Amino acid sequence: MGDLIDRLRAGLPDEAILADPDVTASYANDMASFCPAGAPAVVVLPRTVEQVRHVMRTATALRVPVVPQGARTGLSGAANASDGCIVLSLTKMDRILEIDPVDRVAVVEPGVVNAALSRAVAERGLYYPPDPSSWEQCTIGGNIGTGSGGLCCVKYGVTAEYVLGLEVVLADGRLLRTGRRTAKGVAGYDLTRLLVGSEGSLGIVVRAVLALKPAPPAQLALVAEFGSAEAACAAVCDIMAGGHVPSLLELMDGTTVRAVNAMTSMGLPESTEALLLAAFDTPDPAADLAAVGELCTAAGATQVVPAEDAAESEMLLQARRMALPALERVSTATMIDDVCVPRGRLAAMLDGVAAIARKHDLTIGVCAHAGDGNTHPVVCFDAADPEESGRARESFDEIMALGLELGGTITGEHGVGVLKKEWLARELGPVGVEMQRGIKAVFDPLGILNPGKVF
Amino acid sequence: MGDLIDRLRAGLPDEAILADPDVTASYANDMASFCPAGAPAVVVLPRTVEQVRHVMRTATALRVPVVPQGARTGLSGAANASDGCIVLSLTKMDRILEIDPVDRVAVVEPGVVNAALSRAVAERGLYYPPDPSSWEQCTIGGNIGTGSGGLCCVKYGVTAEYVLGLEVVLADGRLLRTGRRTAKGVAGYDLTRLLVGSEGSLGIVVRAVLALKPAPPAQLALVAEFGSAEAACAAVCDIMAGGHVPSLLELMDGTTVRAVNAMTSMGLPESTEALLLAAFDTPDPAADLAAVGELCTAAGATQVVPAEDAAESEMLLQARRMALPALERVSTATMIDDVCVPRGRLAAMLDGVAAIARKHDLTIGVCAHAGDGNTHPVVCFDAADPEESGRARESFDEIMALGLELGGTITGEHGVGVLKKEWLARELGPVGVEMQRGIKAVFDPLGILNPGKVF
Repeated sequence: MGDLIDRLRAGLPDEAILADPDVTASYANDMASFCPAGAPAVVVLPRTVEQVRHVMRTATALRVPVVPQGARTGLSGAANASDGCIVLSLTKMDRILEIDPVDRVAVVEPGVVNAALSRAVAERGLYYPPDPSSWEQCTIGGNIGTGSGGLCCVKYGVTAEYVLGLEVVLADGRLLRTGRRTAKGVAGYDLTRLLVGSEGSLGIVVRAVLALKPAPPAQLALVAEFGSAEAACAAVCDIMAGGHVPSLLELMDGTTVRAVNAMTSMGLPESTEALLLAAFDTPDPAADLAAVGELCTAAGATQVVPAEDAAESEMLLQARRMALPALERVSTATMIDDVCVPRGRLAAMLDGVAAIARKHDLTIGVCAHAGDGNTHPVVCFDAADPEESGRARESFDEIMALGLELGGTITGEHGVGVLKKEWLARELGPVGVEMQRGIKAVFDPLGILNPGKVF
Repeated sequence: MGDLIDRLRAGLPDEAILADPDVTASYANDMASFCPAGAPAVVVLPRTVEQVRHVMRTATALRVPVVPQGARTGLSGAANASDGCIVLSLTKMDRILEIDPVDRVAVVEPGVVNAALSRAVAERGLYYPPDPSSWEQCTIGGNIGTGSGGLCCVKYGVTAEYVLGLEVVLADGRLLRTGRRTAKGVAGYDLTRLLVGSEGSLGIVVRAVLALKPAPPAQLALVAEFGSAEAACAAVCDIMAGGHVPSLLELMDGTTVRAVNAMTSMGLPESTEALLLAAFDTPDPAADLAAVGELCTAAGATQVVPAEDAAESEMLLQARRMALPALERVSTATMIDDVCVPRGRLAAMLDGVAAIARKHDLTIGVCAHAGDGNTHPVVCFDAADPEESGRARESFDEIMALGLELGGTITGEHGVGVLKKEWLARELGPVGVEMQRGIKAVFDPLGILNPGKVF
């Protein structure tokens, strides 16, 4: 280990190397539950591409595993340290290098915080859509590693759709440029997209060219209350089949509504079994909301409340923002799942999750990016009670099994990490796993990049 | 060869095997110029996934190269036969298996013609955007193999953005399922996107889940005439920087305008050095066109003519549709290039192409998907004159070099195939090529899938 740190010092300034075990221990985890983490040998905080290359050359020379990290807001353990690893934190590489309104691109380093980029481009009349809940903390590099989504995806898609090109330091320190700055391009295999969502297992992203959109008008929202989750899901299907393009279409189940009521003074009706939030950022959002409100009423909504303006819309969306904090107060711990199903199967998914909650005698609240069929069942449990913790883990797995059974995926936007790696093989099948492992070996023949993650 | 055909017969009906050399020769080429093609040993036309698997198992057993083909409308030689190969035509696998308006997906076989799918989904109020010029002939499988674009891309993006999941027969006949049917998903590496644009070099696509959009309103167009290409390109930049989202933004240079005039009775002003066509499919397209028309005038347009209705818009777009046929009449042959540059460099690109035309004393007309920076310089030459053909090939290469120099790519939407494979290494660099070859070896260790293409 002395050798490791000496070698790192040869290409990194002192302040970029943290070796005090008390300090390095604080870099061991991201925000996932139930994911083991080891003790890093060292944490490095490079500021330049050349420094990252030096770290990777050193890691290759000494066969030391490297765990790349952004803001560690991930929910799958993909950024958890392994014993004796180099934690490679990209948070100091946080420059926005360029914003170009003609090409509609931004060029950024990986440590740029999502919100910082969003605000910087907004000042130029532009829009970077991906908006994970952690957007005030999470970094673009982490978003790229995970393939993050957010509330906007129902209209604007996920992170992958905004990454045009990358600069990547490979396991052996070589620099790979992928993709392009242009709007289109089909020269060779799409390595850019291969790297997005690869959770640091193929290379270290050190620069990204991101596509931007023109800033849309402020969105206007409505909230609709339903007496059953089934009716709310039917409304979601009717809205999407009706050709509407909401900028947000979120669902909270009755469990979540009651948790929010218990925490706040929002006074949502206790009889509500599902709350639907829809928003439009179109030229005439009031007209779109009126049409969607009618579909909600026809599907059985007990009440439909459209906002009058942007400020009122923000108030309506507060209930959604409170969902996770409210569920976190139900017990001492939560596990948040991320199963995405075809939206036509959303009702079956919610029904199945409710059955799993009853079977295991647990509180499981569901918030969903309903327009995408992406559910976040939140399993609440007492971490001090091993038996209950066991039931929580079982129900978490049963939720993934249900998602696969309904034609869905085990992860819509949070990634595989440590948390779901045993499940990945079930989703991909043996041929898929073999191809993916083959690709991993091409990029990382020594297996030093984030080992024990994804596969 | 007797052995090859006997083995193929064991898993294919007689009518699915064409072995008459006069017949197989007609499958030797796609529509690219200057691309060598060999003589196929046999052409197979399977109708089922199982038959495709049989073909690939046979090819692997006998180490026979396989060249997959759709409608052979490609422009890079990617579908050209190699000597002694099996041509695997997917054109008989042409069923639309499902159109689902709630999930907004279509499930199709690879031989479905683009226009057939577009019309079928339009009947359900849906929209499959990718619209290559050959859309009445080309197949979805070919579009996926090439990563095709079209006129709509400036607003709706390219084929890659509409492919959610694939079923792929691997080189050894195993079946690989990639991706998903859901709106989102990040389980493992994105093999779907890796396969899109891989030109049949990684596997045979036998089924695709495609994302659909709600059908937009009919688009309304305007045409603007400019005294210089530079002014037209400035207008393009102003339109995009101004936050407009046209559904089409096309440019024709003066050479192209004069060729169209010579062929048709459109009577475009001969002094026109660039024609810009813009269209909007927004709720209020007339307002958007008015704003864009003002930007064109400010940038120096000599005349701006907005259409009154959809029928008049179609008439305006006729000039663009005539561009290629008109340039094809300038001499006995044409080569169509496909260089995409950052849109801020479009003027430099057009200026450079004009200089290349002067230098080589050739007619080179440029049509461009200007909103994407994707230019199609069309080199006109006399194929019977070897010296002139040489100059044509040289100018074609100089256009690619210019594109790379301007920060662009050698191919925006036509692919690499045989035509540009020597250029691919220049764009990707040695590290990129090494990674791509590594991936190829994972999928196709024997090198039987479309050998001699891409790399």
